[in-house]
Amino acid sequence: MPTSRAAELPVLDQPDEGVAPCCPPLTERPLDAEEAERAAKMFKALGDPVRLRLFSLVASHEGGEACVCDISDVGVSQPTVSHHLKKLKDAGLLSSERRGTWVYYRVEPGVLAAMGQVLTAAGR
Amino acid sequence: MPTSRAAELPVLDQPDEGVAPCCPPLTERPLDAEEAERAAKMFKALGDPVRLRLFSLVASHEGGEACVCDISDVGVSQPTVSHHLKKLKDAGLLSSERRGTWVYYRVEPGVLAAMGQVLTAAGR
Repeated sequence: MPTSRAAELPVLDQPDEGVAPCCPPLTERPLDAEEAERAAKMFKALGDPVRLRLFSLVASHEGGEACVCDISDVGVSQPTVSHHLKKLKDAGLLSSERRGTWVYYRVEPGVLAAMGQVLTAAGR
Repeated sequence: MPTSRAAELPVLDQPDEGVAPCCPPLTERPLDAEEAERAAKMFKALGDPVRLRLFSLVASHEGGEACVCDISDVGVSQPTVSHHLKKLKDAGLLSSERRGTWVYYRVEPGVLAAMGQVLTAAGR
């Protein structure tokens, strides 16, 4: 992220913020209500096929980021793409940065690694 | 699973069946429509707070399995618990085995490990 744009952007370059306290591995102990709320929100965001495809498009795109202008082949309209990308952002899975006309989306690596560990540990 | 019960049970002890072909790591390439359908189904199953708590109760229970009779503190009725456990089973995240009065649920380790890898690889 260019430093000159930092002032106009929300703070997004702290992927570990809020990740660690989310949840223990699912095999360790039952989640409490608050932990389950937080984790379920992230899983739910990936629980829609179109949204999951869009997420993988961003995650696998060159440079690890993509804008709506890069996405054309999932069979839904651009407003629908934007809607789903916003939902992924709201769930903490993507961060975004406006550059001129377009908003660019990037995967939040810390959050995903945390989700992955929760599941991988459960699959002992 | 006692061999004597094998005949009366559905085949559940092949956790790797159908797991490997699900999806590549999300950073590798965009998922196609069919892959996204399969993976989203599993994520969606974990996308409800009560269901996620129940899942963690089973996953962390002694012996790696639990029945409805072991679950009493998530604030929902037993029929609701059964309903959610069935949804987790339908999504391929739990397997079940009837023993007398109760149905016991167990985490499908292969499926979870596959989901975890998909996410962990994305969180590079």
